[in-house]
Amino acid sequence: MEKNTTPLILISNDDGITAPGLRVLVEEMSKIGEVIVVAPDKPQSAMGHAITVTAPLRLKQNFIFGSILAYECSGTPADCVKLALDKVCPRRPDIMVSGINHGPNYSINVIYSGTMSAAVEAAVDGVQAIGFSLCDYSAEANFEATRPFIKQITETILANPLPYGTLLNVNFPKTESIKGIRICRQASARYAENFDERKDPSGNTYYWMTGKFINMEEDDNDTDLWAVNNNYVSVVPTKFDLTSNSFIQHLKHLL
Amino acid sequence: MEKNTTPLILISNDDGITAPGLRVLVEEMSKIGEVIVVAPDKPQSAMGHAITVTAPLRLKQNFIFGSILAYECSGTPADCVKLALDKVCPRRPDIMVSGINHGPNYSINVIYSGTMSAAVEAAVDGVQAIGFSLCDYSAEANFEATRPFIKQITETILANPLPYGTLLNVNFPKTESIKGIRICRQASARYAENFDERKDPSGNTYYWMTGKFINMEEDDNDTDLWAVNNNYVSVVPTKFDLTSNSFIQHLKHLL
Repeated sequence: MEKNTTPLILISNDDGITAPGLRVLVEEMSKIGEVIVVAPDKPQSAMGHAITVTAPLRLKQNFIFGSILAYECSGTPADCVKLALDKVCPRRPDIMVSGINHGPNYSINVIYSGTMSAAVEAAVDGVQAIGFSLCDYSAEANFEATRPFIKQITETILANPLPYGTLLNVNFPKTESIKGIRICRQASARYAENFDERKDPSGNTYYWMTGKFINMEEDDNDTDLWAVNNNYVSVVPTKFDLTSNSFIQHLKHLL
Repeated sequence: MEKNTTPLILISNDDGITAPGLRVLVEEMSKIGEVIVVAPDKPQSAMGHAITVTAPLRLKQNFIFGSILAYECSGTPADCVKLALDKVCPRRPDIMVSGINHGPNYSINVIYSGTMSAAVEAAVDGVQAIGFSLCDYSAEANFEATRPFIKQITETILANPLPYGTLLNVNFPKTESIKGIRICRQASARYAENFDERKDPSGNTYYWMTGKFINMEEDDNDTDLWAVNNNYVSVVPTKFDLTSNSFIQHLKHLL
């Protein structure tokens, strides 16, 4: 951020422009800088890092946040950020924040998360980026306890920019008494698939995705999953270079 | 893989069940083991790691590969793998292969790639996984030069399983004379957005996504981008733990 200027803050999410979590983020960011919102016009949860290459995109101004410049976009969260950076923002944002997601994006959820894909998209473009998520799927979730932490984390990153290739994945526990912040690693966990098989009125089979979340590191206290389960805010420094560097030498002996 | 048994090989892709690249992969895998195909019923490029949680999924048997068991699925590549593992495969596959994608998935493309998301999904579930891509978007792309490498890499991994958390991202150059295999890291690159702005017949604006690919590491010869640009097969050991471990200590001093 340039000194003595108001930071420009781009906001998006994956629950859509009307989501209560987005409104909380807009309110907190308005205390820090000039805000621009470009968010999906409908919920886009679990969109991963999808982008729209085979259809055109639409942008429409939305006055839901009063005097704050806001657009709804017909695309995915990653589309929103791409369009915002190219067509909406008058200059490069000092930071991009995503969320607050209704539901956790800790552990393996990060790879499915539209919230995080928006933040990753900004980070790939060289913009400071943070994804915020609350471990409560409810539309009536209570975000109040998250407010001071959101402000603190965002101001810290504005003052101490992350190196290229790194962004933050922040998850809040579902509690009114948060104990503090923990810097963590992504927990190893997965979903055990268990599709619910049904018949439609014509007798044809269809499937609903369900899955049991399996924590494979229950005993470790340095993971994001442990942090939120113990009422801490988890902050994971996250990257989009997926190379397993430690395995390169071994592989050179095999292939 | 258990000794003295035919390996069970699950195949998916993101270009859809009729894509020529999928057929080449089915042919090569049939030389190695028993094959099951579960692929999208329509193209799903750039779907990232999207999964379908708000709509039901359909599976329909397809006889496009003759006696090989094949299903088309209404969902994303990641959906295909989840459904295949839960509802189609008679036992755990020994390996899952994805592709051959029509188009590159090197460098930053990995985060947008439906091909790689299918492979990642299998790997999260603990199944050995490889994504194969050819650096040629054409539907008439020539895959012949890739065949011996696909067989070699797959057999090597079946004989030397990857540790949990690691899969392979394999990209083939667009050439008939491939020089060999290079074990690489993911190149640092990004797309410079440049949306094409148009007016529809009603006078409303819409946008087509375009973007110029920018290689930020042109001088380095240990990246996947360098390898394919120099007619080598790039093999990147890839992981889905996105933690930037090297940044954890620094962040602990800031927050």
